[in-house]
Amino acid sequence: MSKKLFMTPRTQVKRLKERADYDQALIFAAIDEAIVGVIAFHDGINIHAIPTAIWREGEYLYVHGSNGSRLLKHLQTGAQVCVSISNIHGFVLARSAFHHSINYNAVCIYGAFEIVAESDKEHHMKNFMEHWMPGRWQHVRKPNKNELAATTVMRIAITEAVLKSRQGLPKDDVEDMDQPVWAGIMPLHLQLGTELQVIEQSHTHLPGKKMNAQLRKFHL
Amino acid sequence: MSKKLFMTPRTQVKRLKERADYDQALIFAAIDEAIVGVIAFHDGINIHAIPTAIWREGEYLYVHGSNGSRLLKHLQTGAQVCVSISNIHGFVLARSAFHHSINYNAVCIYGAFEIVAESDKEHHMKNFMEHWMPGRWQHVRKPNKNELAATTVMRIAITEAVLKSRQGLPKDDVEDMDQPVWAGIMPLHLQLGTELQVIEQSHTHLPGKKMNAQLRKFHL
Repeated sequence: MSKKLFMTPRTQVKRLKERADYDQALIFAAIDEAIVGVIAFHDGINIHAIPTAIWREGEYLYVHGSNGSRLLKHLQTGAQVCVSISNIHGFVLARSAFHHSINYNAVCIYGAFEIVAESDKEHHMKNFMEHWMPGRWQHVRKPNKNELAATTVMRIAITEAVLKSRQGLPKDDVEDMDQPVWAGIMPLHLQLGTELQVIEQSHTHLPGKKMNAQLRKFHL
Repeated sequence: MSKKLFMTPRTQVKRLKERADYDQALIFAAIDEAIVGVIAFHDGINIHAIPTAIWREGEYLYVHGSNGSRLLKHLQTGAQVCVSISNIHGFVLARSAFHHSINYNAVCIYGAFEIVAESDKEHHMKNFMEHWMPGRWQHVRKPNKNELAATTVMRIAITEAVLKSRQGLPKDDVEDMDQPVWAGIMPLHLQLGTELQVIEQSHTHLPGKKMNAQLRKFHL
């Protein structure tokens, strides 16, 4: 049986709570499907919500960026944040306007980020690349000392988190079943385009097929 | 010449400011490309960041939901929020690990939402559906009085907003140009799946082609 995360006042869903889940495996799967997450924080005056690339390793969510990033500098103060990660799976087309919906999953992670040690950064950057482009790391020019020194890597424990999702067919009212309109699901997925913009054709380590498989793994 | 929005302390981008833009037409185009936005708010104790379907009409961004929604109830207090709307256009694969990136656009809108009058709700819900599924509204069963009464529609002026984006090819260092690895852009777009999950085949108002054109308009 998959582990359940503890519900807290911040993660307790009250409306449509049948769509909420605290199952660790489901939360991890939704996170692994997404390329970016939105980190919401309060800088003392205003609220900001900034998208950034994410990846998961075990029970932690990782982000990275320049040392000069306002977001990363703020996270280093130990500020409480909410990370929103969501994926759209389709439009739900019902017979009535009211029952139209979207199939999706959405995770909120609450807590504070911590900084990753200098000596561990390269390892995590490699894991990030290998998540989307398996096998690519061995072919690229690795980060040098200056590049690693200019990069901040941070992580947040995925312990206080909740998943909300909708799946399945439209739920129309019985009296609408004869409405003369098409109803069903129009699936949507983030997909690699067919036209790669190649700038270097002489080399052979083309990541296309493996990466597409990775992207499609969760969508089809 | 397209209108420029005023820069404010909240919307002033300091890092990589060459990626920032205050051009109204570019901001509107990025918003129109997205299905959901993430609304970040502070409830007095914690920060939350909640994804919800969005659409634009003129200089306003609209959202809707159940009267019971915590998010919508909170927005009605006039709370300051940040709405984050982003779209991913491709992975940027460079010769060096360090110069890998993502092509994207991302809008932050700051301000407060206001409620839409009861008598205007149906009009805006129609506009929402017609944005993604042109021509569908005339075929579905329209919202009745109870359904409209149970729905809250809100909007925020798109006046204090900023766009950040990256486009184009990888920018490798000169000394890496002989690295034996493929480099270029792997385009990504949210796309309608080929397998519709049809639950009602006897009717003919299939929105597929028009909707796909709408989705692809901004991506191809």
